[in-house]
This record gives sequence, C-alpha cells and structure tokens, in this order.
Amino acid sequence: MVHFDCDYMEGAHPEILKRLADTNFEQTPGYGEDSYTAKAKELILKACGLENARVMFLVGGTQTNSTVIDGILDRHEGVLCAESGHINVHESGAIEASGHKVLVLPQHDGKIRAGDLASYIDDFYKDDTFGHMVAPGMAYISHPTEYGTLYSLNELEAISKACKEKGIPLYIDGARLGYGIMADGTDVTLNDIARLSDVFYIGGTKVGALFGEAVVITNDRILKHFFPLVKQHGALLAKGRVLGLQFQTLFADGLYFRIARHAVEMAGKLKSAMLSKGYRQVIDSPTNLQFFRIPNSEIDRLKRFATFEYWGPRGKQESTVRFATSWATKEEDIDEFISKL
Amino acid sequence: MVHFDCDYMEGAHPEILKRLADTNFEQTPGYGEDSYTAKAKELILKACGLENARVMFLVGGTQTNSTVIDGILDRHEGVLCAESGHINVHESGAIEASGHKVLVLPQHDGKIRAGDLASYIDDFYKDDTFGHMVAPGMAYISHPTEYGTLYSLNELEAISKACKEKGIPLYIDGARLGYGIMADGTDVTLNDIARLSDVFYIGGTKVGALFGEAVVITNDRILKHFFPLVKQHGALLAKGRVLGLQFQTLFADGLYFRIARHAVEMAGKLKSAMLSKGYRQVIDSPTNLQFFRIPNSEIDRLKRFATFEYWGPRGKQESTVRFATSWATKEEDIDEFISKL
Amino acid sequence: MVHFDCDYMEGAHPEILKRLADTNFEQTPGYGEDSYTAKAKELILKACGLENARVMFLVGGTQTNSTVIDGILDRHEGVLCAESGHINVHESGAIEASGHKVLVLPQHDGKIRAGDLASYIDDFYKDDTFGHMVAPGMAYISHPTEYGTLYSLNELEAISKACKEKGIPLYIDGARLGYGIMADGTDVTLNDIARLSDVFYIGGTKVGALFGEAVVITNDRILKHFFPLVKQHGALLAKGRVLGLQFQTLFADGLYFRIARHAVEMAGKLKSAMLSKGYRQVIDSPTNLQFFRIPNSEIDRLKRFATFEYWGPRGKQESTVRFATSWATKEEDIDEFISKL
Amino acid sequence: MVHFDCDYMEGAHPEILKRLADTNFEQTPGYGEDSYTAKAKELILKACGLENARVMFLVGGTQTNSTVIDGILDRHEGVLCAESGHINVHESGAIEASGHKVLVLPQHDGKIRAGDLASYIDDFYKDDTFGHMVAPGMAYISHPTEYGTLYSLNELEAISKACKEKGIPLYIDGARLGYGIMADGTDVTLNDIARLSDVFYIGGTKVGALFGEAVVITNDRILKHFFPLVKQHGALLAKGRVLGLQFQTLFADGLYFRIARHAVEMAGKLKSAMLSKGYRQVIDSPTNLQFFRIPNSEIDRLKRFATFEYWGPRGKQESTVRFATSWATKEEDIDEFISKL
Repeated sequence: MVHFDCDYMEGAHPEILKRLADTNFEQTPGYGEDSYTAKAKELILKACGLENARVMFLVGGTQTNSTVIDGILDRHEGVLCAESGHINVHESGAIEASGHKVLVLPQHDGKIRAGDLASYIDDFYKDDTFGHMVAPGMAYISHPTEYGTLYSLNELEAISKACKEKGIPLYIDGARLGYGIMADGTDVTLNDIARLSDVFYIGGTKVGALFGEAVVITNDRILKHFFPLVKQHGALLAKGRVLGLQFQTLFADGLYFRIARHAVEMAGKLKSAMLSKGYRQVIDSPTNLQFFRIPNSEIDRLKRFATFEYWGPRGKQESTVRFATSWATKEEDIDEFISKL
Repeated sequence: MVHFDCDYMEGAHPEILKRLADTNFEQTPGYGEDSYTAKAKELILKACGLENARVMFLVGGTQTNSTVIDGILDRHEGVLCAESGHINVHESGAIEASGHKVLVLPQHDGKIRAGDLASYIDDFYKDDTFGHMVAPGMAYISHPTEYGTLYSLNELEAISKACKEKGIPLYIDGARLGYGIMADGTDVTLNDIARLSDVFYIGGTKVGALFGEAVVITNDRILKHFFPLVKQHGALLAKGRVLGLQFQTLFADGLYFRIARHAVEMAGKLKSAMLSKGYRQVIDSPTNLQFFRIPNSEIDRLKRFATFEYWGPRGKQESTVRFATSWATKEEDIDEFISKL
Repeated sequence: MVHFDCDYMEGAHPEILKRLADTNFEQTPGYGEDSYTAKAKELILKACGLENARVMFLVGGTQTNSTVIDGILDRHEGVLCAESGHINVHESGAIEASGHKVLVLPQHDGKIRAGDLASYIDDFYKDDTFGHMVAPGMAYISHPTEYGTLYSLNELEAISKACKEKGIPLYIDGARLGYGIMADGTDVTLNDIARLSDVFYIGGTKVGALFGEAVVITNDRILKHFFPLVKQHGALLAKGRVLGLQFQTLFADGLYFRIARHAVEMAGKLKSAMLSKGYRQVIDSPTNLQFFRIPNSEIDRLKRFATFEYWGPRGKQESTVRFATSWATKEEDIDEFISKL
Repeated sequence: MVHFDCDYMEGAHPEILKRLADTNFEQTPGYGEDSYTAKAKELILKACGLENARVMFLVGGTQTNSTVIDGILDRHEGVLCAESGHINVHESGAIEASGHKVLVLPQHDGKIRAGDLASYIDDFYKDDTFGHMVAPGMAYISHPTEYGTLYSLNELEAISKACKEKGIPLYIDGARLGYGIMADGTDVTLNDIARLSDVFYIGGTKVGALFGEAVVITNDRILKHFFPLVKQHGALLAKGRVLGLQFQTLFADGLYFRIARHAVEMAGKLKSAMLSKGYRQVIDSPTNLQFFRIPNSEIDRLKRFATFEYWGPRGKQESTVRFATSWATKEEDIDEFISKL
C-alpha cells in the first residue's frame, strides 16, 4: 500500500529530530524568547531578502490564518478570498468565529484575479448602501493554491498593486510555499512573496517540520500587538524553542528548498505517468498536489493498493481525487503506483 | 417631490401614536413584563393559529436576525441562506460578528430551492472532510424576499420538509411579512408561515409600527434561553410596553393586514403604469417592492421629481432601481409619479 | 399602588409624542440621514459646548455600551470598570460576547478612583507576563453610577488626567446623565463631561424619551467606522428620525434638564422623609435612585402599597431595596408613599 | 547559572524523541485518526479507570481551555473560576474572545470553595434581575492550582457535588496534573479526577512531552461536536500522530507518573532548604511550584546565579518570586542553588 493522502503523513526531516534530541536538555525561556528562535528569524529574513520585518512562529495553518486575519481586520471589515480558499472552506468557520466575514471572489483554478479584486472594491464603494455591508479590509490568497496552482509574477504584481491602490493589506497563505517556490516554470521567488505582500507565512508543517508556520510581517503598520493576539488565539507554543529550532534547521543551508524540490519532482513523475496512461487531469498543477477525474470503478481498483483523497463528495459515475506528494515521498512508492496504473 | 426610497420613511399608523399618547403615563414594568405585551402576544398567536408558541418583541430586523440565529446555531454551525439574503449582504456582518458563517445557496429571484438546500446538506455529509467545514445548522429565508418575491405554498412546504428531513430548523425573516401575506395571487397564509417554520418574525418597522419585530418561536426545543440572549445582543427594549402596545394595536382587529394590503395595491398600480409605459421590469414582484432596469438618462430625469434607490452600483448605461411603497403611501403620490413617466 | 421600580416605567414627555404625531407622515430618509437628526445633533453639541464632535443616536444603553466599547478596543484589550459597573453586572455579558474582558477596579459607592486606575495600568506593565494578560485599553465609568452617586469635578478631572497620561480613552455612560447634571451640590456640568471624556452618551430612555441614547464622540481618533459598527450591532434604527426628533425636542429649550430636575427633587423628598422616619440609607445618593437597607418584614408591609426593586438577592433578615423616581414621577405618589411609612 | 523559571524549559522525555525518530517515516492519516493516537487514548482511559470516555489531544493549555469552555457554554453563560485562575489572568482574554465571561469566585491559596460556588449560583437565581446577568454555566478549577496547591479529596468531592446539584459541568485544568497526583500527602488520584469532573485534561507540555494536552470527556452530554470546534479554534494538529505517540509513551508503563514524581521531589528539596535558611514561604505548596516572599536585595543576589520568575510586579522592598522544577530538573542544579542560599 502506498499513500498519497496528503503532505503531512510523515514526521519531520531527520535533521530536525536530531537537533531536537541534541538540544533536548538545554533550558531555554518559553514563548519564543530563546536563541534558536532568534537565529531562525534571522535566517528567514535573509532568505526573504528582508532586513527589518518581524517573524513569529505559530503551530498550524488554520490558527495562523485566523490569528493574522483577526489581527488585521477592523470589526466592520471582512477578508477577500477565492471561493475555493482554505479559510472559506476548510477551517470550520475559524474566521467567522473571530467575528469576520469571508468576502468571496470568483476562483480560476484556485486563484483570484487582480481585476476582480479591484472591481469588488470599486463596486462596493459605488453602492449607496455600503455602510450596511461588510467592507473589504484585506485580501487573502494562497500560493500555491488549494488546487496546487501558482500565481505568475505578473499576476502577483497585479494583485499586490490593486491592494496597494485600494489601500488594503495583502496576506499570502504559504502553507505549501516551498512547493510553489521550487516548482518548474514558476517565476515567483521567496523575495517576490516578501516584497509583494504585507504579511505571509512559510509553511513548515507540510514542508519538512513536525509542525510550525513562520509568519513574516513586512508591513509595520499592521499587527502591532501580535504577541497577545497569538496568545489569545491559543497559538503560542510554550516551548517556542521547538519551533525556532525547526525553522533554523530548515533555513540554515537551504534544506527547506531542497526537500520541497523533491516533492515537486515526485509529483511531476506521477503526473506524467498518469497523463500518459490517459487519466484525465482536472487542473494543470506544477506543484505537489495533482487532481484527476476518474471513473469510480477505476478509483475503487486503485484504492486496493494506494490511498488518496476524494476532492469533494464522491460522484455518481466518476469523482475527482487528489494525489499529494511531500518532502518525504519515496520514489519507489511512486514507481510502484505507476506500475499498477 | 414624491418618495419611494424605502418602506420606512414615515412614522407609525396614527392609531398607534394615539394609543401611545393615551397610555403614556401608565406605569408598567420594563422588558416586556407588562399587560400590553401580554395581550399583544395573545393576539399574535391567535392570528397565527397557534396555541403554545412563544412570542418576543425586538426593535429591529438586523438585531432580530442576529439574535435568533446566534441563539439557534451551535458554534460549529452556519446558516444556509440565499446569496442575496439580507443577512448575507446588508447587515454589516452581524451574523459573522456573533461567530457564524453564512452558507450561501443559489438565489432564484431572491428565493432558495428546497432541492438546493437538500443537496447542500447531502453533499456536505458525503464529503470526507466535513469535520473541517462549517456544518449547515439552520436555514434562513425571507418572505417576501429582498426582491419582493414570494414563495408559493408548494415551495415553502418543500423547504420546510427538507429542513425537517435534514434535522435543521427553518427561520423565516418576515420584515415585510404583511406585504407578502396580502399580495395578489399568493397562497401562503400567516398560518402557513407559523406551521412551516420553527421560528419567524412579523415585521412591524416596515408595516405600520414606529419600529418593532415580533419573533414567534413555534419549536420549543430551540432558543431556550432567549431572554438573556436578547439582552446580550442589546435588543431588549427597556420600555417593552412600547413594543407590546404597537403590536396589540396592529393585531387587535386586522389593522396590520389592511394597511399591508394598501401598500401592495399602490405598488401594483405603480407597476402596471410603468410596464404599460414600456419600462423594463427586472423581476416580477407581487409585493410592495418593484425593480426596474432603466437607462441612466431616464433615471436622472425621474430623479428630478421622485426619489428611489439604486439597487447595487449605478451602471455605465443603465441601472437597476427599486421603488418601494408602504402602508402610508398616498395614492396621489403614485398618480403624480405616473403622470410624469 | 405607587411605583418606584425604575426610571423607565412611563412613556415619553408629552411634547415628544405630540411632535411624533405632528410629523408622522413626513417622509424622511432612514438611518439618521434626516433633518431632525441633523438638528438634534446641532443642539446637543451646543448644549455640550462643543463644535466639532460627532453625535450618533442609538436605541438603548446596553447596545450603546457594547457598540462603543467594541469599537474602541483592540482585540487584545479590555475595558477598566468598577466592579459594580453596569457592563460588568447587568448586560448579560454583552461586552464579552463581542470579545472583550471587563477589567475590574474596586468600587467605592459605585465609583472608581483615579489612583486605582493608574496603579492598575502601572502594575500591568510592570508585570513581566503582561503579554499574556488582557491590556487595559479604555476606561468606563457611569455618571451617575449604578448607586446613584456622582463624581465630583475633582474626581472626574483626576480620572480623565490618569487616562490621558496612560494613553487610554475614557468613556462615560450617561444613561441617567440628566439626573446627575441636575443634582443638588454637584459641580460637574455637561460641558465638563464633554471636555473630560473621549466619548460619552446622554441617556434619553430614562430621561424623557420613549427610548434613545445620544453618543457624543469628542476624540476624533476613535470610532472612525462607527456607522457600520452600529449596524453590525443591530443598533441602527431604520426610522432614525424618531430618535432625532426626540432629542431635538429634549434639547430645543432645556426640556431635558428641567424634567431631570423634577426627578431629582422627587427623590430628595422621598429620601428626606425616609431618613426622618429612621430608615437606614445604604448610600447617600443625590440623584433619582435611593437605596435603603430595610428589615424584610417592613419590606413586605411596604410592598402592599408600593412597588420597588430588591438590589441583589433578598437577605435573610433584611434586604437592600432601591427606589427610583423619574421625570414623570407624580408628587402625589411620593406624598402617598410617605404617608404610609 | 541554574534555571527555575518554569516547567517548560526543556524538550521532552528522551523516550519520546526516540519514538518520534523510530516512527518518523511511517505514513499515518492526519488529525488523530492514526493508530498511535488510538492506542494512547486506550492507555489514558485505563489509567483513569474509565471505559467509555472520549479522549482528544490538543497542543497547548490556553487553546484547550478556550476550546473546551467555548464548547460547553451556551451563549448566555459564563464560567465560574477562582480570581487567580489561569483563564482569568494569563490567557490574554481567550475566554472572552470566544464570547464568554469569566465569573470570579474568591480564591483561597488558589482554590475555590464548594460553598462559595453554591452560594454564587443560589444568589444568582434569587436575584430578580438574573435574566440580565451572565448565568453560571460551568465551573473551572485547576489541579494543581496556579499557586501549586492541591484540593483534598473532600474538597473536590464537595465541589463536584455542588456542581451536580446546581446542574453545571465541572472542568479541571490539569496542565500540571502529574505534579498534583504525585505530590506528598495528596489523597486525590487520577481516578478521582476522572470520576469527579465532567471533562478534564492531562497536561503533557509541562510533564514530559514536547507539547500536548489530553482532554478526557467523561460526560457524554457535553462537547458533542468537539472535533470541528477544535479545528475552528486552530487547535487541531495536522500530524495528530505526534500527539498520540507522545501520550502513548507517557502512559505505556507509568512514565508520566515517575517523571512527575521526580519534579515534586526536587521541589521538596528546594523548599526544605529555603525554609531552613529562613526564606519566607508565601504559600505551602506540595507540588513543583514554590513561592517565596524575598527582599529585593536578596532577589538581586540570587539572580546572579539563578533564574526564576517574579509573581506579579516587583515590589518596592520585597517581591514574590516563583521557583519551578520539572520532570527534567537536575538534582545537581538544586544542590548548587541550595549551596548559595
């Protein structure tokens, strides 16, 4: 049995476990006041080409999204997001639970368009009743998206420009950022992400860490009281060192990027094989997630030797399924699966 | 200048003001514990053909929606609603501010369909990831809708049945309920509304009262602690008598229905005239709201002697506008407007 | 039977009802965009000795407190308040429901002390763990307090100064402000209230209006998006004219102050009589609320011909009770009650 | 330099790190659906003497408290808690952020008394205005408390009985539960905790785990939809296995209790030494936290070779400080510190 359910089925890169063990009995202050965390922040800023941004480590993606968004929005504001965005679908209403509406934009392969965003805001303020409606207070995108797709640099520049012109911050959910940065054909670098957003996070949970997300705040006018908010959202890890050390390890010598690249290559191999065997791709993803529309009978056959997820409810005749690779995917598992297609 | 901006431009039916004046110096307990409120509850139950339901008077529509919905939903649940529903568009995020997501269903002339509602819930529980999504915890419809349209009895029965089968309560926003009940051609009575929903409200603000909405709770398993919730939502009027007395007046001898009928007739007259003059109707509404799509130049001309609202942002060439009549609309105003079409 | 339960047992000053009737069929825009509201704002600013402050009319006290406080506080902040403050005791958790903690200061006859407030803030920031605690983000006082007591001008100046020094806004709940301003022996004027706070409200519900509270925002750096927040809190009255017209009437020629003075005089007469008959005063209130500690047997006797409220739970031997007069209290009722003491 | 700042300065028990490494490349489903988690649940139930309770693993204490409490309380309810309780002081308002008031009871060495709890509820419902106040909907205690103190079995039985009689659930915060169970002289066992509460948690973060808290729900009428609520609160760890495996390790053969005992012994040794040297104990704690009131000059001297926390702001002449030991405290560090007293 081989497994492609998701990109968080394994533990952490062995180097991380080794370093956790090596430093296990060192006594450090809690809540991120330790030297590992300080070092990790330094390395991340450097990797992003930043000098003065703030970095904070949280545990998971949903909590990061809900804490960041809650911290940015004023009470009468909502967050613009693709209809398919994670915060709109798969976070159990965490954004609403902290009081804010998700304002839905059309999605195109999981992405929003700068033009749609600008129109939404223009139309909002042209509507005489806008004082009775939820004001667009920030924009949320994910890169890669839920569908594994990537913004081009042009697209990202346009969205960033639209946000600046309309006066709202742009937040990029980078739960799988490594897999985006290291994809074939992308022209978006980590520096671009940092340059074009007001705040973003670099996902660790899905890219080599046991868990952990690194929030990078480049706009110093937002999230001024982030620490107590992180605490309030239950997102402050007591042993902050455990987060700092993981990110220090991932960013010390490019490990994060190397292992992300591996996942992308494994997904590419899987995709090529499936396409050549005639499976119908739903979307053309250059990253670690691959979506196919497959007859249910074939899904049932594949399920005998592989696990993967339905994307949405199972259909009557055929269904969409998702295959995920990760930094830890073994090439032999890919080969075994391909041999049975 | 004649005014069709909305249905809350005037004060209250004169009989209400008279009774307020007559009883002004009576001393009554606060918060709805007075005899006028008790009498009003009795009259409303009778008008609804109910015996044991609870009735509670609140001040306005948005606060009623947010209090009722907040009281019904569990923390992990959201409310199903037409994309065009008032709670989804024009309540400044009040539902989200109390922690709940509005789950959007397609709208057809402002209405949802029982089949869409049932499918949403079926698909939800068929999705393996439903534990990560906001569960549909209740349904919200308005009757009449935002577009002035009405559910037929068949449609309402189907929605009610779907809700019961799926185990969620149905809440009907009756901000303009009188205008719906008294419309031409409707087969939905107040008794049907009461019988087919778990909770609904009878709008007073837009139908003859200075302000006030009567919440009728027919399902005794919901909203068990409604009083403190009303207080918490800032929706408890100190001088509850003022609400009770208004509804007592409206329901003592059918005043509510008579004055609602007047508004419907005035809107009908307006509609006929506009149609006969070739104005393009956007939607066929049998109630007090009428929507037309009109060239901007003609809108500008009409605006010289009449006020009415844009529905959405003004378009480039033509725009949708809304004309509202009310219980207080003067026939001479309608005539004057018609004469200038 | 005479009634001293509370100060909202009657309707409105007759002049208000008359004006509501006189203007009943005028058509005005909703939500406070009418000329009555504009005029009322002008009169209130004049009465407060202000030129540029913002004024907004809401319906009731709890909703005003929760909307104002929610609008001022950042997510990590709480509101400093006397332990006995209305928002801490009798608002069903409305402040917490919008996400904020009430930070309790000791109460002295219902009042807080500037020194306690300053110490709280000093100690807070001296505590190494303050990032894990709720930051004091504003101060709330009521004038008169829940116990009918008043701040002296010195006390108020000191509190205002402490707030300024510590960088937090001061909000004054004036649900019974008229009864405070017109009390014997007070040296605090409406101008002082306006000058020494950042935002306050002038209560109408308890002082002559059917309902309504006038929020006056003197600090232009706070509550920048108050309108949508009012809507979100369900506190925006559709027929804003009804609020505007009431306050216009109350402030056109000093009516508010005259009728408030009457209540104070009636309470003074009641107090003197009770003291002279040997009833034990709990607190020395110069306003319309009077508190006495009375043996239960005597309470039971008084209850045969008068109604009034227990203040807290009934005790075993004796209990604290509250007598409230209002702008509408009849002197003959006071006399009748006194005759039976 | 020796460190007694808190009980989360080190990593995890080495056996945990070893097992994480051993299983690192196993692929398991996320969100706690793995076999390690299943096994851990089984072991915990066994250790608690329970058969049918539910167990769920969360990451940290504040998030656990806020998720559990939010899930139990109805919207109009608050949580009873000692004034010194963690949720009332050191969680940045997390309870209020999810909409609920903390209802304060007096604390006696960090503990509440059954009598105070019962009286609070009795008085609440005897107050005629209780519908305007926040209803006591559950009780929260911590064992050990913030001050390191423990409830006796009699005290705990009385609190549990009072809760049952008043109809509210009892929740025990066991962030340091191991240090309580293993204290000298306690008559409270893990079985008692499980038997006398409706829900409690066994703290891992402070007792041997890298992080993690095991919530045990013994009352099947509460927290019926806990999974989506955990997700909504950002408290659902993607790699649930990491939590399951840690608790499996801690509860496989009593490791949790053995290492907790060590911390208690180290604290006892420290306490005895300090007492014998004449340091003034603030409170007599039998667990791993020790509080002393020490002249500032002596604190400054001790700070030259040891770290420990101020408890509250530093005083003018003397201050209260806290010494914490943990499962990882080295006896040689205790000895070194003692040698310098």
